Amino acid sequence: MRSNPRGLVPTLEVAPGKALYESNVLLEYLEDAYPESQPLRPTDPFDRARSRIWSDFVTSRVIPAFHRLLQFQTSSAPDKDGEARLDVLRGEYRAKLLEFARAMDPEGPLFAGSELTTVDIVMAPWALRSWVFERFKGGLRIPEPGRGGGDEEAWARWRTWLAAVGSRESVRKTTSEEEYYVPIYQRYADDIAQSELAKATRDGRGVP
Amino acid sequence: MRSNPRGLVPTLEVAPGKALYESNVLLEYLEDAYPESQPLRPTDPFDRARSRIWSDFVTSRVIPAFHRLLQFQTSSAPDKDGEARLDVLRGEYRAKLLEFARAMDPEGPLFAGSELTTVDIVMAPWALRSWVFERFKGGLRIPEPGRGGGDEEAWARWRTWLAAVGSRESVRKTTSEEEYYVPIYQRYADDIAQSELAKATRDGRGVP
Repeated sequence: MRSNPRGLVPTLEVAPGKALYESNVLLEYLEDAYPESQPLRPTDPFDRARSRIWSDFVTSRVIPAFHRLLQFQTSSAPDKDGEARLDVLRGEYRAKLLEFARAMDPEGPLFAGSELTTVDIVMAPWALRSWVFERFKGGLRIPEPGRGGGDEEAWARWRTWLAAVGSRESVRKTTSEEEYYVPIYQRYADDIAQSELAKATRDGRGVP
Repeated sequence: MRSNPRGLVPTLEVAPGKALYESNVLLEYLEDAYPESQPLRPTDPFDRARSRIWSDFVTSRVIPAFHRLLQFQTSSAPDKDGEARLDVLRGEYRAKLLEFARAMDPEGPLFAGSELTTVDIVMAPWALRSWVFERFKGGLRIPEPGRGGGDEEAWARWRTWLAAVGSRESVRKTTSEEEYYVPIYQRYADDIAQSELAKATRDGRGVP
């Protein structure tokens, strides 16, 4: 709270009294501050701007849809149509994944092509936590391969991306086993979590 | 709509079929694409990150508060406490301006010091349209000089910044006279505007 009055993580204290926050800002900062490292932003200005648009899409569209679905309580819906409302939220979240998949470089396998870029990093944690919906909310119901209808191509692209990101050593080494996430996500699934993100979702707002 | 399916301006078509959008992304793009021009982002990585945090603050905090106040209808409040609710929204908007002012370089006169940076550009249009509240919503009620109490220093810094930004030739040449804005803002003030931003505000959401 001293470093970031917004009460959010991640927060990076660069030097005493010099704190930075907001995930996307921190990724840009690390790129600017350590230019000798492997670059994670596309070099071309247009591609770099697209990367920023789709990183922002994760924050402004994907994460709120993820949390609206995760925190939804079927018992809260009027006229016992909780299951129907749950399915609407499921469809809204799937629609964000499809929109993201359609914005990818067609070849891939990563978002912008063969190289990892910041937009992959921003999306990865959410994509790799899809199991929470299986566990708590009856699944995302993403079509099986060959059964995606008009969305088949986009779902295939999504699966290619997911496999490419999920198999990276850097991702595997920074992902805990599911059992450690379960108690945390149980609180979100029961809509009793007290993080700023949980509260904002409860109030119908986006990422705080 | 062809260039930007989100239906928002500004949208920049860099080449046929290559469109970019989101104000903050476009500002970064112009910096990346025209490095020979006068730089508008701080060079130091920490200062540049702070500039991004506070540009994002305008989008995620200032603009929603501006529109919640502007579009509020006193007649919509229960128990005839419309004026009280209006005053709460006024205070919330003033609080965002104070928070922004306190984040500024103490010397100034601009946000990051003597040079114009993107964060000044992002904030300028909203700051310079404060007159709409005088016209439509009974004023912002920012304290007169010397009457700011514990906020005196921050309001003084705000006034210094506002004068520095508002007097710039580039700002004056890209600002229309008030009469041209009035019919547009009348629709917002009556809460009948149909822009995506107006609709998002009506639904209790942030910048779409």
